[in-house]
Amino acid sequence: MEAMTFVLFGATGDLAKRKIYPALYNLYVDEKMPKAFSVIGLGRREVSDVDFQARVEESLHTFSRRSPEDAAKVRDFLGAFRYTSLNNKKVEDYKKLLEVVERREQELGIPQNRMFYLSVAPEFFEPIAENIKESGLGSGKGWKRLIIEKPFGHDLSSARRLNEKLSNTFAENEIYRIDHFLGKPMVQNMEVFSATNPVIQALWGNHYVSNIQITASETVGVEERAAYYDQSGAVRDMFQNHMLQLLMMVALHLPKKSSPEEIRFKKKSTAEALIPLLQEKLNENIVRAQYRAGELQGKPVVAYVDEPGVEATSQNDTYFAARVFLDDPFWNEVPFYIRTGKRLSEKSTRIVVEFKRPLNTGIPVDENLDANLLIIDIGPKEGIRIQLNAKSPMHHDTIEPMELSYSSSYDNVPEAYENLIFDALRGDATFFAHWDEVELSWKWVQHILDAFTANEVPLHYYEAGTEGPKAAEELLAQDGNEWH
Amino acid sequence: MEAMTFVLFGATGDLAKRKIYPALYNLYVDEKMPKAFSVIGLGRREVSDVDFQARVEESLHTFSRRSPEDAAKVRDFLGAFRYTSLNNKKVEDYKKLLEVVERREQELGIPQNRMFYLSVAPEFFEPIAENIKESGLGSGKGWKRLIIEKPFGHDLSSARRLNEKLSNTFAENEIYRIDHFLGKPMVQNMEVFSATNPVIQALWGNHYVSNIQITASETVGVEERAAYYDQSGAVRDMFQNHMLQLLMMVALHLPKKSSPEEIRFKKKSTAEALIPLLQEKLNENIVRAQYRAGELQGKPVVAYVDEPGVEATSQNDTYFAARVFLDDPFWNEVPFYIRTGKRLSEKSTRIVVEFKRPLNTGIPVDENLDANLLIIDIGPKEGIRIQLNAKSPMHHDTIEPMELSYSSSYDNVPEAYENLIFDALRGDATFFAHWDEVELSWKWVQHILDAFTANEVPLHYYEAGTEGPKAAEELLAQDGNEWH
Repeated sequence: MEAMTFVLFGATGDLAKRKIYPALYNLYVDEKMPKAFSVIGLGRREVSDVDFQARVEESLHTFSRRSPEDAAKVRDFLGAFRYTSLNNKKVEDYKKLLEVVERREQELGIPQNRMFYLSVAPEFFEPIAENIKESGLGSGKGWKRLIIEKPFGHDLSSARRLNEKLSNTFAENEIYRIDHFLGKPMVQNMEVFSATNPVIQALWGNHYVSNIQITASETVGVEERAAYYDQSGAVRDMFQNHMLQLLMMVALHLPKKSSPEEIRFKKKSTAEALIPLLQEKLNENIVRAQYRAGELQGKPVVAYVDEPGVEATSQNDTYFAARVFLDDPFWNEVPFYIRTGKRLSEKSTRIVVEFKRPLNTGIPVDENLDANLLIIDIGPKEGIRIQLNAKSPMHHDTIEPMELSYSSSYDNVPEAYENLIFDALRGDATFFAHWDEVELSWKWVQHILDAFTANEVPLHYYEAGTEGPKAAEELLAQDGNEWH
Repeated sequence: MEAMTFVLFGATGDLAKRKIYPALYNLYVDEKMPKAFSVIGLGRREVSDVDFQARVEESLHTFSRRSPEDAAKVRDFLGAFRYTSLNNKKVEDYKKLLEVVERREQELGIPQNRMFYLSVAPEFFEPIAENIKESGLGSGKGWKRLIIEKPFGHDLSSARRLNEKLSNTFAENEIYRIDHFLGKPMVQNMEVFSATNPVIQALWGNHYVSNIQITASETVGVEERAAYYDQSGAVRDMFQNHMLQLLMMVALHLPKKSSPEEIRFKKKSTAEALIPLLQEKLNENIVRAQYRAGELQGKPVVAYVDEPGVEATSQNDTYFAARVFLDDPFWNEVPFYIRTGKRLSEKSTRIVVEFKRPLNTGIPVDENLDANLLIIDIGPKEGIRIQLNAKSPMHHDTIEPMELSYSSSYDNVPEAYENLIFDALRGDATFFAHWDEVELSWKWVQHILDAFTANEVPLHYYEAGTEGPKAAEELLAQDGNEWH
């Protein structure tokens, strides 16, 4: 792996502390960092290098999955860290930064490979990118790359504008858009799941699959993010990015281990194949909802509109469900049921592939044979389960479901941020969101956002701590299905 | 279920004590016995009814899976038991027996439905059947049925002769041949496994299956049965019956829950489809072996020829493996690898379905992708496992096997004998060995037995406590496969 400089905007922020420093440290321990590397932390505040290194070290003790026990190793690791204060909007500060970067490159013998990680609010993406160009920071002789995190725009047009601005400085293949769901092992596994498992490959597609259910349910409410969330809602915050990325990953049907380009091509094809929900079809295929007061884990919780920082008249969506079809012969007529929401009974992200029921089995109808299921547990615990049917060993002539399960026996597996930063460092863009995917996702949800704004979509309510609104049950019941 | 008389030959024997009385008792507790029933125990010895009932009760305390706690229930159960001494070969004794049977039928209001269970050495099958006829025992107004256990003959001709004799008294559909492997839940499950599981149905057959491995390995040696076993060997004792029955069950591919007749028809078709191993093909498809001294569970064990009761020059097979093909378009070119032996490292009966490997996956060849497996654990612990491949969450770009498993969460499930006796009582012959199957199995193994006798098959050796002879590994290695 090539030596490089890791230029971190937002170095005193929360994400840096919780995720980025621990990720870099664990990569370092696992010898997945380049032999030589320089980290330059940036923030508005004045912080000395020593204080900065102390902050980083503290974050390791608090947040690293492996506690930093080897003092010499920690010292070596921290030795790569320097800090420079910077006003995101002042190009002179970037010129100072360039001097620091270059000095360290010389000291450490690092070629001009520069990774720019923007762990800052999205309104700063544009000025930072511009100043990287203006200052000459982006004109080194080595590679330059940009890591950014969602939100990539607030709607289709703002996303497009942002991308245009970024593309003045960075080519598409230099931009690594983190969707941390794509860093999770079970999501990454989808890349090879059918290629390495003939039995899965045989079953993938609309010959055998009845429907696919993608769920990301949270127990938390808006937490400290009311100001952002009340302007965003479940569609923007979860659906447009994470949920549609999961859809693109599960719809993959690759016959072999593919190149990042091939995977991007396939994901783009899926995003293009999303059948738009136009006016007359919109309301029968989506459910918009908001939580009311309820009880979670034995404690009363307030209604969304009573959360601090939320407007009392807010019509914001804290839950969203949709029935989505793909215009793709492989998945033709297979509904993808997608739902996500806050203040639900359980914290869980999973994909359930429901296979078609056996027809005409001669088993008496009152037995109500369960469908075969493939359940991919993405979090909080990873695993794969398959539900089959079997004769009960207890009761003659009774068929009952039987669940085969795998849970990872590994402790302490690499976190999503480790996987993703490692991939960005080695230039593998497989598990990042490509612009085409982002744009097509926004395009698909834009109808929905417009209809929300025009108040054309009824707002349903659900009690906090339940499984969501009744309307979401009805959405599947129309097809004779139910959520698993 | 119709009231009936259960006439038990060998009532003071070991099987009666260990299996039959506990089975009847547990069926009684589960209300799977007829409302009224009479049990008449038979043996050479003179035993009073009271002593007989005490013996039965003792067997429940020692061998029943549920301890007989409810004294009133045990008393009611035992009240159905009577004993009559009988010389198997004396027809007068059967006439006395008929009087006892009829008296009890009148006392208990039982129609003349009579179940004859022959828990005796096979040389008595013929005289007993004949005397049942001669004495008039078999001429009641209700149904009559016969339950017998293997060995059903010693070779093809003796099996045919036995069957002819039995058929003088009992029609084929009155004969219930117990193969207790067919009483095990996971074997019974094969009846509905593909009909109730579309994903299994999709994968069954030679499009996806590479080979099927059927293993019954024992840790025990000849125990007390040397006199019998040294004249019998693994082919007669295990292969001709249990192993070929497992093959017939796993080869089933029923689109729906089928009638006993349909299942018999399919099993017979499979037995007919067994491709004979004629002279020139014999040795390359079978492995005959015998154990030498070794170590099992840390203890030294003697060689087969040093077991008490075994001839020092015995060439008997304590291990047998075969590669079997079916002349059936559904299983065309799928080898069935079958092995069974004594004094092996592990006690285990299982079926492993190995699926074809992914072709051309683009995964570097040194990764050596494992095949997908479906593992049906028949005993001692029941379960189903599926082995898939997945990306390692620990090591980038490494694929490793992942096992999904189901183990029955039921405690104390009905034993094979309960299932089988229950089926015989209600006249369901699904899980019994039909004469066609028995005859065709003998027919197929007869070539092998003849070649053994003619000493045309090399005898391999294996150390006790190992997984068997090296030749058995080589048998699969020829096809590029290995035992799982």
